[in-house]
Amino acid sequence: MLKIIQQNEQLSIYFKDELIIHHTTKEPAFFVGEGKETIDSYRGNFDIDDYIKTRIPLSQVEVNEHTVIFRHDDLELTLSLSVEENRLVGKFFLNQPMNRFWFRLYADKEESVYGCGEQSSYFNLKGRDFPLFTSESGVGRDPNSLTTFYANLKDKAGGYYYSTYYPETSFVSSRKYWFHLDTYAYSIFNFKHTNFHEFLTWEVPQGFILSKKNHYTELLTDLTDVTGRPPLLPDYLLDGMVLGVQGGLDQVLSYLKQAKDKGVNVSGLWCQDWAGYRFTTFGKRLYWNWKLNESLYPNLPNVIKELEKENVHFLSYICPFLLENESLFLEAESQGFLVLNQKNESYKEDFGEFYCGIVDLTNPDAYDWYKGIIKKNLIALGIRGWMADFGEYLPIDCKLHNEVDAVLMHNEWPVLWAKCNYEAVAETNNLGKVFYFMRAGGYGSQRYATSLWAGDQSVNWEIHDGIASTIPAALSSGIIGNPFTHSDIGGYTSLHGNIRSKELFDRWCEMNVFTSYMRTHEGNRPKENFQFYHDDDTLNHMARMTQIRLALKPYIKHLFHEATLLGFPVQRPLFFHYEKDEKAYQLQYQYLFGKDMMVKPVVTEHQEKMDVYLPDDDWIHLWTGIHYQGGIITVDCPVGYPPVFYRKKSSFAFIFESITKTYR
Amino acid sequence: MLKIIQQNEQLSIYFKDELIIHHTTKEPAFFVGEGKETIDSYRGNFDIDDYIKTRIPLSQVEVNEHTVIFRHDDLELTLSLSVEENRLVGKFFLNQPMNRFWFRLYADKEESVYGCGEQSSYFNLKGRDFPLFTSESGVGRDPNSLTTFYANLKDKAGGYYYSTYYPETSFVSSRKYWFHLDTYAYSIFNFKHTNFHEFLTWEVPQGFILSKKNHYTELLTDLTDVTGRPPLLPDYLLDGMVLGVQGGLDQVLSYLKQAKDKGVNVSGLWCQDWAGYRFTTFGKRLYWNWKLNESLYPNLPNVIKELEKENVHFLSYICPFLLENESLFLEAESQGFLVLNQKNESYKEDFGEFYCGIVDLTNPDAYDWYKGIIKKNLIALGIRGWMADFGEYLPIDCKLHNEVDAVLMHNEWPVLWAKCNYEAVAETNNLGKVFYFMRAGGYGSQRYATSLWAGDQSVNWEIHDGIASTIPAALSSGIIGNPFTHSDIGGYTSLHGNIRSKELFDRWCEMNVFTSYMRTHEGNRPKENFQFYHDDDTLNHMARMTQIRLALKPYIKHLFHEATLLGFPVQRPLFFHYEKDEKAYQLQYQYLFGKDMMVKPVVTEHQEKMDVYLPDDDWIHLWTGIHYQGGIITVDCPVGYPPVFYRKKSSFAFIFESITKTYR
Repeated sequence: MLKIIQQNEQLSIYFKDELIIHHTTKEPAFFVGEGKETIDSYRGNFDIDDYIKTRIPLSQVEVNEHTVIFRHDDLELTLSLSVEENRLVGKFFLNQPMNRFWFRLYADKEESVYGCGEQSSYFNLKGRDFPLFTSESGVGRDPNSLTTFYANLKDKAGGYYYSTYYPETSFVSSRKYWFHLDTYAYSIFNFKHTNFHEFLTWEVPQGFILSKKNHYTELLTDLTDVTGRPPLLPDYLLDGMVLGVQGGLDQVLSYLKQAKDKGVNVSGLWCQDWAGYRFTTFGKRLYWNWKLNESLYPNLPNVIKELEKENVHFLSYICPFLLENESLFLEAESQGFLVLNQKNESYKEDFGEFYCGIVDLTNPDAYDWYKGIIKKNLIALGIRGWMADFGEYLPIDCKLHNEVDAVLMHNEWPVLWAKCNYEAVAETNNLGKVFYFMRAGGYGSQRYATSLWAGDQSVNWEIHDGIASTIPAALSSGIIGNPFTHSDIGGYTSLHGNIRSKELFDRWCEMNVFTSYMRTHEGNRPKENFQFYHDDDTLNHMARMTQIRLALKPYIKHLFHEATLLGFPVQRPLFFHYEKDEKAYQLQYQYLFGKDMMVKPVVTEHQEKMDVYLPDDDWIHLWTGIHYQGGIITVDCPVGYPPVFYRKKSSFAFIFESITKTYR
Repeated sequence: MLKIIQQNEQLSIYFKDELIIHHTTKEPAFFVGEGKETIDSYRGNFDIDDYIKTRIPLSQVEVNEHTVIFRHDDLELTLSLSVEENRLVGKFFLNQPMNRFWFRLYADKEESVYGCGEQSSYFNLKGRDFPLFTSESGVGRDPNSLTTFYANLKDKAGGYYYSTYYPETSFVSSRKYWFHLDTYAYSIFNFKHTNFHEFLTWEVPQGFILSKKNHYTELLTDLTDVTGRPPLLPDYLLDGMVLGVQGGLDQVLSYLKQAKDKGVNVSGLWCQDWAGYRFTTFGKRLYWNWKLNESLYPNLPNVIKELEKENVHFLSYICPFLLENESLFLEAESQGFLVLNQKNESYKEDFGEFYCGIVDLTNPDAYDWYKGIIKKNLIALGIRGWMADFGEYLPIDCKLHNEVDAVLMHNEWPVLWAKCNYEAVAETNNLGKVFYFMRAGGYGSQRYATSLWAGDQSVNWEIHDGIASTIPAALSSGIIGNPFTHSDIGGYTSLHGNIRSKELFDRWCEMNVFTSYMRTHEGNRPKENFQFYHDDDTLNHMARMTQIRLALKPYIKHLFHEATLLGFPVQRPLFFHYEKDEKAYQLQYQYLFGKDMMVKPVVTEHQEKMDVYLPDDDWIHLWTGIHYQGGIITVDCPVGYPPVFYRKKSSFAFIFESITKTYR
C-alpha cells in the first residue's frame, strides 16, 4: 500500500499507487524557516503580514524503511510513515525549533481540490491560495464591489475571497483522496502551482493523514469515520420551517399565528432576543447576558410546553461573550473564568458601542461552568435549539488559561466552543432532539457542531457575499464532512445601501427547501428590510414551499440518515455521484440534494429562464414533469419554480411525481 | 575611514564611524534564494506576485582585510569593500546563480529615510516597504478612495501608495548618508524594521555605494557628483509661464493673445498635439506619429521664429511609441527597430482603442535612428522643449535586441529614453537652451532628464493623487539628485467623476510659482474641465502670479545655478537647511524653495487659514511683511496668497520686500 522509492536524488512516496510526495534535491518536499507576523485585528477581521526571514530547503534525504529524514546541515525533519486502518499516516519531528514549515504534496496538472473549511467564493480551490485563519467572513468579500469598498472604509470589514468563519487544513482531491494536516496554527494552503500543493503552517504540524478510496461516497464515510459525524437533526426540522422572529412573546406568537393562518408549516420559532436586545448604529443587537428576559418572554417554560403540543419548538441564541458588568460577566470574572489581557485584566472585546468579556474555554472549570449555563439557562427551559454564534473572534493578544499562544489557539477556539455546546446537549441526553447552528468552525466541527449556518450574507445578489455564496459554502464544508448546513433565509447584513427585497427573500426561501432546514432571519436592520409578515404573497409562497418540503420528508429523512451514518452531505457537488463527468467538477452554483435531486437555485435578480447542466442520466423537471437525458438545457424559473430535477430511477420517484402533480 | 570588526559571531562594518552593516549568525546581513514571479500587466500597471522558494541565511562570515565572505555551506557571497573618493564602495560576487538577494543595512531606531525615486504618497519611507518597478503611478492611489475603486474596476489602474513612474534603488538617510544599490532589477526596499533596512532584488546587484557627509548640502553635491547633474534650464522659463494649449495654430495663438492681453507673462506655448490628435473614450489623445501636422500647425518654423522675437517659445511632445501602420512605425519595422513579441513580430502595446510599436532603445541603430527623429522632427523645426512622455511601459513579455530579459530591463528603460533625448539635445549643442520634461525615471535620470514633471495627477484634492501629492513627489525625487521638477498646473486625470474646478486650477497655479517652472495642462478631457481661457478672473490671477515669478527671477536663477553646480534641489525638505530641527524631518506638504523661502501650498479645498511650522529663524510673511521667529503660526491664505515666507537674512531680501510692497 505504501511504497517509498529512492533513486539517485529523487524520492517518491506512493500510497495505493498514487504518488503523494515527490522530492528532488532541487524541488524538495519540505522547507522550514523563521518568520515574524504582524497582525492587526478589528472586530473579528484580521490583517496579517508575514515577514519570512528564512526558508530553507530540506534537500537531502535518507530513507530507513518507513522513516524518511529530510535534512539541511544539522536541520533534520523526521517523517515517520505508517498505514493505519487503510490510511496513510505521517508524523513529523523537527530537531530544532522553527516557526515556519512548508510541505509540498505532489499535484497532478488536472487535479481539482475542494474544502479547506467553508469557502464561500470558490469551491474548486485550484489556482488560488487560501490563508486559513478563522475570522468574520467579510462584507462584500470582493474588491470590485462597492459594498466591500464602504465596509473597508468604515469598519475594515470588507474581507477577501478566502475570508471564512470556518477554515480547515483538510481537503478532498479529484484524485479521490482526502488529506488533513494536523495543526490549528495559521496556515496558507496554496494550490497555485502545477505540480505540487504547498502548505505553509506557523508551527511544525504533528503530522498528516491521507486516505484514498475508489469513490467519493466511500471517501466521505472514511473521512467522517476519522472526524466524527453529527447526530441526527431533530425530526421537527422536517415538518416545517423555523421562523426567525423577535420582539417579545406577544409579537412572535402573532407572527406564528399569521403564518399558520396562511398555511405555512411552522415547526420552530427562533427568538434570538430571548435575553433582551438593544439598538446600535449597526442595527438591532442582542443583550449579551444569557438569561431569559422575563418581561419580553413571560412564563416561557409553560409557553414552550403549549407550543410543543402544536409541534412548534422554541429556539434561542448564545455566544461565548458576556456583556461587561452584567451578571454572567461578573460571575465569570469573580471566578477567573474570563480570558485576560496582557495586564492580567479581563479582556474586553469591542463590539461597537458595547464591550464584552470572553469565557476562557481552555480553562476546564470555566468550560464546565459555561456548559452548565447552556444546560440551565437554555436546555432546562425547554429550548430545543439555538444559534451558537461567534467563535472566530479570539483576540491574538489575549492570555489564556492553558498558556498556549492565542495566535496558535485562534483556529481551535471554534471547535472548543462547538464541543462545549455538544457536551451540554449530550450530557442532558438530548442528542438528536436538541440542536444548534454555528458559523465558526474548524477540524472537529464535523462531530461537535450539530449543524452549520453560512453566516452573515449581504441581503443582495452579489456573487461573493449574497445569496449565491451560500452554495459553494455548503459544498465546501460538506465535502470535508459537515453534512448539515443552511443559511439565513433572506440574508442578514443590510449595510452600505443594501436593502433586502421581496424577490431576494422569496428566492432564498425556495432555495432553502433544498438544504438541511429552513430558517428565516429578520437581518441586522429589521425595520428597513423586507419581512415576510408584511406581505401576503410571500406568506403564500412560504406556505407552498413548506408544503413541498413536508412532501419531501421521507426523502430528506433518508438524506439525514445518510449524513449521520455515512457522512454524505445533504448538499453534494455533482461529481459526488457523477465521477466521470468532467463538467461536474467545475460547477459551484448547482448541486445534488441527495443523490436523486438536482438543484440550481436562482441567485440572480429578475431571472426568468435558466441554463442547467445535467449529467448523463434520466432527469425529470420537478415542475413540469418534462424528461431530460442530460446536457445543457433551458427551463423557465419564475419565483416558486427554481430549476429542480429528480432522477427518474429514484426509489423516491413516487414522492417527486406527486409534487409535480400538486405543485406544477 | 572603513573599519571591519569581527568579534565571535558578530561582524560590524563602520564607515566614518557610522555602523553600516551589522551581521550576526542569527541575524545575518545577507540572504540569497530562488523565487518565481508572476506578473500581470495592463497598460502600464503591473500586478506582481512573487513566490519565494528559498531564502537562505548566509550566516557564516570570514574576513580577509577588506573582503568579507558570507557563507552557507558552499554558497559564498564575496563582498569586496573599498573607499573610493571618500565613499564606501561594495562589490558583490556570488559563486552560484540565484535570482533573489536580500541585503540588510544597519538601521537606527530613530532614523528617517527619503528617496527611492519619486514617491508621491510618503516622503519619509520609514515604516513601510516600497516595491520599485516603474509603472503608471495610479489613479487615486488609495484603496479608501472611490477614484481608485472605479479606476481598478474599469482599468486595473488604481495604483498603490508606492506606484511610481520613477523608482530608484537610492535613498538619503537622516544619518546623513546616501546609499545606492547598483541594480535595475525589480526590488523591494523595506523600511519596516527597527534595526535594519532590507533590500530585496531579483538579481545579485553589482554592488553598492554609500557616502556620508556632515551636512545635507554636501551630501547632495556628493550624490550628484556620482549621478551627474542636469544642464541649466533655459532662461525663458524664468520669464513667464508655459501655456499648455492645443487645437491648431490659430487656436493656440488666440489663447496666447488672450493671456498676454490680460498681462500674463507667457514665455512658452506647449502644443502637445503638434503631430495631430484623436478622441477615445479616455479623452483627447495625441496622434502618435511624431511628424508635424501641417494642417494643424501650418508654416510652423516661421511662426516659431516670429514667436521667439516676443520671447515665446514653442514646445511639443514625443514618446517612444509609434502608432501602428503609420509612417514612423513602418520605417522602424522595416529596419527591425521595434521591440518584438515572443513570435518575433512587432510588439503592439494596447493603449485603449489604438496600438503602438515600441522603438527598441537597446538596439544602437534604433536608438540612433530615434535620436535622429528628435533632432530632425523636433529640434530642427525650432522646437525648444517637449514632454518626453512614457518610459514606464516596457512590457515584461517582449524580446529586446540586447537579449536581456525584459523584466530586468524594465527599470532601466526610462533612463535609456532620457539618454536618447539628452543626446539629441547635446549633439545639436542645445544643452541649456532646449529642454524636455519626463515622468518616468531611474538611476541616471539625474543627468539625462533635463527636468521631471510629476505625471498625471487627478484633477482633485485627494491626498494621494491630487494636488498635494506633487509635493512629496518633488521632495523625494529632489533628495536623490533631481533638482528640477514641476507638475501640470490644474492636474491631468479627469475620470470617475473628478472634474477640475477653478479653485483647484488657481491653487495649483499659485503653488507652481514656487517650483522649477510653470506650465499648464488642459487635462485628458479639456472640454469638461475648467480652463483658464474661459475665466477672466483666473487670467488675472495668472498675470499676477507670473509677475511675481518674474520678480523672483534673480533668486530662482540662483536656485537653478545651485541645482546644476551643486545638485541642490529647487524644492527642498526643511531638514535640508535645518538639520537639528526634529520636526523638519516629518513634514511633507511644506518645503523650502531654495534656502530663503518657505512654502506651504494650499492643497485642500476652501481653506481660509493655515497652520505653518517655521523652524527657528527670522521669517517674514511674503504677503503682509509680518515677522515670525519660528514655531507653529497661523496665517490667512485666500487664493493668490498661499503661505509663503522668506528669511529676513536672505541676500535676496530686497527682492522679497519689493514683492511684499507690490503684491500684498
